[in-house]
Amino acid sequence: MFHEALKAAAQDVQAVFDTVLAEYEDFPVVHAMRYAVAGGKGLRGFLVLESARLCGVDRSGAQFAAAAVEAVHAYSLVHDDLPAMDDDDLRRGRATVHVKWDEATAILVGDALQTLGFELLSRDEVGPAEVRVALITGLARASGAQGMVLGQAQDIAAETAGGDLDLAGITALQANKTGALIGWAGQAGAVMAGADSAALARYSAALGLAFQIADDILDVEGDAATAGKRLRKDESAGKATFVSLLGMKEAKARARALVEEAQDALGPYGAEADVLKAAARFVIERDK
Amino acid sequence: MFHEALKAAAQDVQAVFDTVLAEYEDFPVVHAMRYAVAGGKGLRGFLVLESARLCGVDRSGAQFAAAAVEAVHAYSLVHDDLPAMDDDDLRRGRATVHVKWDEATAILVGDALQTLGFELLSRDEVGPAEVRVALITGLARASGAQGMVLGQAQDIAAETAGGDLDLAGITALQANKTGALIGWAGQAGAVMAGADSAALARYSAALGLAFQIADDILDVEGDAATAGKRLRKDESAGKATFVSLLGMKEAKARARALVEEAQDALGPYGAEADVLKAAARFVIERDK
Repeated sequence: MFHEALKAAAQDVQAVFDTVLAEYEDFPVVHAMRYAVAGGKGLRGFLVLESARLCGVDRSGAQFAAAAVEAVHAYSLVHDDLPAMDDDDLRRGRATVHVKWDEATAILVGDALQTLGFELLSRDEVGPAEVRVALITGLARASGAQGMVLGQAQDIAAETAGGDLDLAGITALQANKTGALIGWAGQAGAVMAGADSAALARYSAALGLAFQIADDILDVEGDAATAGKRLRKDESAGKATFVSLLGMKEAKARARALVEEAQDALGPYGAEADVLKAAARFVIERDK
Repeated sequence: MFHEALKAAAQDVQAVFDTVLAEYEDFPVVHAMRYAVAGGKGLRGFLVLESARLCGVDRSGAQFAAAAVEAVHAYSLVHDDLPAMDDDDLRRGRATVHVKWDEATAILVGDALQTLGFELLSRDEVGPAEVRVALITGLARASGAQGMVLGQAQDIAAETAGGDLDLAGITALQANKTGALIGWAGQAGAVMAGADSAALARYSAALGLAFQIADDILDVEGDAATAGKRLRKDESAGKATFVSLLGMKEAKARARALVEEAQDALGPYGAEADVLKAAARFVIERDK
């Protein structure tokens, strides 16, 4: 059930990109934008669509918000992969944008994907203007220098300083770097419905942290071909991770506990939230 | 009168950045954001504030929109100056962000400044939600891969192809690269007032093109120390410019004609538009 929902969400998000980018000029930077938004798990877009369903929000509007967060996520990956950042050549099982095109194109693609994210949220289809503005404010705070970009900067600083972050430090860093965007996505449905987002906020916070612990585990135990990206990066960079700080066994126990916490948070929604509960399990069981 | 208005606009925009960024964490990427938004002419922010005044829009809200376009402009400069792009080390008379900090910081600073632009437009102070959404849609289209980023990509493509653009090609390129953002700024007041923006659109289109012709002239005749940035870039890159295509004399005549066209467009506003008319003259007489 969950995997069907994840796949359907990815297809609906892709349909938005297909429609919207068809109006763009036929230019390499636009080709590279299409390339960059394709092939991901689509977890963030799924969270938008599934939280929207849970809150009774129409899917045809929500899918623009789902595409928006996937555009912003894709922008962050394209820039994160640049030589001056993580210098990765493999992403989603394919060459990264700066490898397939060049660095200048990758910089512009990331820039334009971020813009596209905000453009998508500003569209009439998303809902009343008040809702669109609330989503935009939230996404800006989650992704800018008070959220995702701050987390990336903290990550670089930690690497430069030689990985001396403790558990509190790494938890705070990851809450910014990956948690903020996941949090926005998981609460988007409630924001669109004008409903109370407290339960979804608790769910997404636990989910985001579980996701990152799972990423650290995957970096050690995963298979690069399956994951579609370079692994064993943290150890070679001497970075503190949840695994290096907690040990593998405890990291796994912690991730499992967070999944339960995420699922418990959805109690008020009953069986309607089963797909989101399954998503929490998926987050720590995935192999990519 | 114009110079006082330009200076006052720059101060009001700076005040927005001071207030907003004070809430950000004390981190190098945030210091570099403050650095990147400082010291410019502030022409785009001025156009927002002056078109707002002309349309009877309250300055306290308009200054957030003015800061938004300056944030987006600053992001484009920081990324444009990167080694993989124009590789410039001087901007606004100071070291570029990647020189003063490093490339990774410059990438993140540009990213976060773009986000900040949209965050500022989504603020309550800007006006009713419908107005904020209209400004956001407009800024996204002007700055993304249908506007500024497309223009930058076209510029890179033209350079790679060896500067064989004709006058129509370079005009189209510049309409995207610099014209779209100037156009958004010059019409912002009408958008905020819910007024007809046709006259301001004609004004800004002529102004934007005059601005770019003046930039090409400045690249040949200007003084790098006064301009605060590297000059003689176009010739050494073998790029087609308005000067190389028209000759210096005709380029200057064309710029003057565009200034008249811009001023004529403001006819309906009478003497109230004198400051914007003076801005059009400034655009072709500036030495930086």
